[in-house]
Amino acid sequence: MSTIIYALTNPIFKNFAFYAAASTVKMMAMSLLTSGERFAKNAFANPEDIPLGNKNQAKVTFTDPDVERVRRNHLNDIENILPFVVIGMLYVATNPNAMVALWHFRIFFFSRIFHTIAYQVPLPQPSRAIGFTVGYLTTISMAVQLFLALLK
Amino acid sequence: MSTIIYALTNPIFKNFAFYAAASTVKMMAMSLLTSGERFAKNAFANPEDIPLGNKNQAKVTFTDPDVERVRRNHLNDIENILPFVVIGMLYVATNPNAMVALWHFRIFFFSRIFHTIAYQVPLPQPSRAIGFTVGYLTTISMAVQLFLALLK
Amino acid sequence: MSTIIYALTNPIFKNFAFYAAASTVKMMAMSLLTSGERFAKNAFANPEDIPLGNKNQAKVTFTDPDVERVRRNHLNDIENILPFVVIGMLYVATNPNAMVALWHFRIFFFSRIFHTIAYQVPLPQPSRAIGFTVGYLTTISMAVQLFLALLK
Repeated sequence: MSTIIYALTNPIFKNFAFYAAASTVKMMAMSLLTSGERFAKNAFANPEDIPLGNKNQAKVTFTDPDVERVRRNHLNDIENILPFVVIGMLYVATNPNAMVALWHFRIFFFSRIFHTIAYQVPLPQPSRAIGFTVGYLTTISMAVQLFLALLK
Repeated sequence: MSTIIYALTNPIFKNFAFYAAASTVKMMAMSLLTSGERFAKNAFANPEDIPLGNKNQAKVTFTDPDVERVRRNHLNDIENILPFVVIGMLYVATNPNAMVALWHFRIFFFSRIFHTIAYQVPLPQPSRAIGFTVGYLTTISMAVQLFLALLK
Repeated sequence: MSTIIYALTNPIFKNFAFYAAASTVKMMAMSLLTSGERFAKNAFANPEDIPLGNKNQAKVTFTDPDVERVRRNHLNDIENILPFVVIGMLYVATNPNAMVALWHFRIFFFSRIFHTIAYQVPLPQPSRAIGFTVGYLTTISMAVQLFLALLK
């Protein structure tokens, strides 16, 4: 077989590229949300940032609940989206069924969108737990298929 | 040379895929360990998570020593395993000696397993420091070989 | 077109490999800076680390301003450099103009070097904000070009 796996001519890689990039950009958006909350709450992490805020109210704090909620969400994205990218990239090398692969990518991406909504609204539990678990199991499913292919 | 580097037909990439995925899954396991500690200690990070725990004891806290120990371990994995994946993936492109490459991957992976054991038992220092340092130097060794190949 | 994208024979990938590895090694250097600050300030994160420091002064603390400043810088690198690596790797698959791609990689890397200097000196704001924003927009620019190529 002379097909090149890692090229946009491979529809499986092309779909992976889309969902991996979309998930990564979604993760990057958390930086903007953090900044937005810091300005809204005048809650900064460094003394030199104070002049950027309202001069009468801006303060250094690490306990603002709204800022910290966004930061926990961002860290949870890092803990889940980057493993998805790594495992997904390697899973593509196993040349999986194209539809099976696409649904793994889709389910992961939308589980993380739902997780963020559940975290930021916030929705009552187990909403966020379900969003987390679905994404987590999707990545584990790809990892299992990768290991099975590697052990062949 | 017409060999395709990034394909499972390349044994160096195949070995990388195994150890990169194994290291990433090990890192993902820290999420479960964090959840387990949160339930065991009834120590949650969000008010909406309280109903998931024991209703008389569950509380929001960011200072439970057992939960925070797992979280520091998880962050340390993120700080070390993801760089290994990035540098290792690029190092594979230099078409290194297969046995040299395999031993880099193996030593890194087992150094991180040892690091986690040393962190969670915890073993007296410098156990954890040695686990960290061995993994760190393995990644740096691959980076040096990559830079030498790129500058040729 | 039979060119293999992900090989060091492709100058675009070769340039990406250099800047992705350089950015990742720069990020890894933050671990050493954290350790250095912990020893300099005798400010450790775990009780078992105390014997590594000065026995009369070493303590467990999570609020040392110098240590925490380095740790925020490290986390900011994780939040920005790893997305650059993911988006940059996928952007290379679109076979972009070689000079346009090289300048994206260069600008990103030097924006992060400047960001670290601005964070650690620290330079007055908006120095650090500019460093962050330039790097962020460089990654977003590659993501936009990737999405346009994927939608073709």
